Amino acid sequence: MSNSVLGIDIGGTNTEFGLVSNLGDILYSGSVKTRLFDSPEALAEAIYDDLQSNASHIDIAGIGIGAPNGNFHTGNIEFAPNLVWKGSVPLASIFTSQFGVPVRVTNDANAAAMGEHLFGSVRGLKDFLVVTLGTGVGSGFMVNGEILYGHSGMAGELGHVTIEPNGRACPCGRIGCLERYTSSIGFKITTSELLLSSPTPSVLRDVPDAERSAVSIDRAARAGDELALAAFELTAEYLARGLATAVAITSPEAIILCGGLARAGKLLLDPTEKHLNQQLLPIFQNTVKLIPSSLSAGNIAVLGAAALGWEHR
Amino acid sequence: MSNSVLGIDIGGTNTEFGLVSNLGDILYSGSVKTRLFDSPEALAEAIYDDLQSNASHIDIAGIGIGAPNGNFHTGNIEFAPNLVWKGSVPLASIFTSQFGVPVRVTNDANAAAMGEHLFGSVRGLKDFLVVTLGTGVGSGFMVNGEILYGHSGMAGELGHVTIEPNGRACPCGRIGCLERYTSSIGFKITTSELLLSSPTPSVLRDVPDAERSAVSIDRAARAGDELALAAFELTAEYLARGLATAVAITSPEAIILCGGLARAGKLLLDPTEKHLNQQLLPIFQNTVKLIPSSLSAGNIAVLGAAALGWEHR
Repeated sequence: MSNSVLGIDIGGTNTEFGLVSNLGDILYSGSVKTRLFDSPEALAEAIYDDLQSNASHIDIAGIGIGAPNGNFHTGNIEFAPNLVWKGSVPLASIFTSQFGVPVRVTNDANAAAMGEHLFGSVRGLKDFLVVTLGTGVGSGFMVNGEILYGHSGMAGELGHVTIEPNGRACPCGRIGCLERYTSSIGFKITTSELLLSSPTPSVLRDVPDAERSAVSIDRAARAGDELALAAFELTAEYLARGLATAVAITSPEAIILCGGLARAGKLLLDPTEKHLNQQLLPIFQNTVKLIPSSLSAGNIAVLGAAALGWEHR
Repeated sequence: MSNSVLGIDIGGTNTEFGLVSNLGDILYSGSVKTRLFDSPEALAEAIYDDLQSNASHIDIAGIGIGAPNGNFHTGNIEFAPNLVWKGSVPLASIFTSQFGVPVRVTNDANAAAMGEHLFGSVRGLKDFLVVTLGTGVGSGFMVNGEILYGHSGMAGELGHVTIEPNGRACPCGRIGCLERYTSSIGFKITTSELLLSSPTPSVLRDVPDAERSAVSIDRAARAGDELALAAFELTAEYLARGLATAVAITSPEAIILCGGLARAGKLLLDPTEKHLNQQLLPIFQNTVKLIPSSLSAGNIAVLGAAALGWEHR
């Protein structure tokens, strides 16, 4: 009988889960559509039944859950805009009732930071941060070997730090949030703005706005499209502003980028590193490693959630 | 024989020191001119001799030092621009040699945070930050009951977070740093800008630019001068931008303001609180107390340094 922790990543569309060993090996994994469950209790039961049917030989020592607006202190999801369950959802107690083991909850970016800490290339590092560049922008700060949860349990919202005081309106209600510039949506807005303001020829001009995706811009940049490359350059400058702020406050040893936009690799990393060192206070220049996640993109959320479970089992 | 910790606050002009009990009582205090000493060894010896002459009946269990660019991890002062001692100064080892007790070093804002933690009105709070609004702007972050030093030992530089990407040039080499807007110098610049851009009558128009001080603007505001009040309002908005960033990343329970500009009290606190709640992410709105320091302004630096010594004795 193997020993594992159940890592669960709850997203607006899919809920991924996996049984993960203390070395970060995924012993079993599954996935369900989040929207099929009109209550979190029903989701907990479905995952329980799946594991009973398919992986009952694997022992579960604890559960870690990454969920939008997951609050580490309370174990609740607090008013997550893109979930069907509204209000404050007592996720930890629901899963504890179903499984009878300790359950820890946090958001996906904090979970990713714990995953990197236990299973990633930064194992052993005590001060670093993970920035997720996806549909939104999240961040998880590891400070002196512990995740920074803050008084509310919801710290680490680098995506909602202002980088342009008179800039784009963010759905959160604020103005000029980093997320509005360096999420996949922000990246597309920047590209559209460049197409409007610059006369540079570009293959992207032949694609309707609605069909232009981060992936198609990435492809154009790789083919040498000047405007697509300019979009990466500008996005890197925006990102560097947010990262310079994070460094001034927390002085990490490394910054790990993950999420869809980070898959652009050196196209984004190289200009971000250049702009970051230009924007850092002299005492911090060239002290911070900027690196891509070493965890497989498809598994990072589940591994992160499991790492949280292992850390607090 | 009383038991104490020696707290030392090294500034560009004065070095204040005091023997402080574990309750925060100052048993003896003194002051010397920093510039009189061409080496830190000479300063250590002078403080030692003063205590031998005047307070030899008080036992010293440890030393805490607050100094510009003081690095907690190394015990050094790293390239402090406004000290006569250049380069990297091994302050902890110099004072340990002179006194034969453990010595801890950090910057003045981190020391202030430790002072508030041990001796101030936020005693017992585990997540808060102190922002010093003086000639410069410093900050010390208490995270889960520990000062956030970061990998470099120099974390907590909220004064050098960008609040205006195309704004004022900062002597640090960056653009738009919070410090350039909410230090006493920044406050004066804002007032001068308003005097230039606004036709509002003001008693401040009769004062030459060089003679206008934060104190005289404060006095004008208290007398109802509209322009001076507008300067506070705008400064509060700038400050709130920096504080909203700090809250998004660290989610504190309280923010403590101290330093010269904080002495304006409600003139600055009330508009800052208003702007802060407008700029915070909804999940953080009305969760953060904004309070003035409860420690006596004249003693906060020495008490903070002593608190550092008590914490790590």
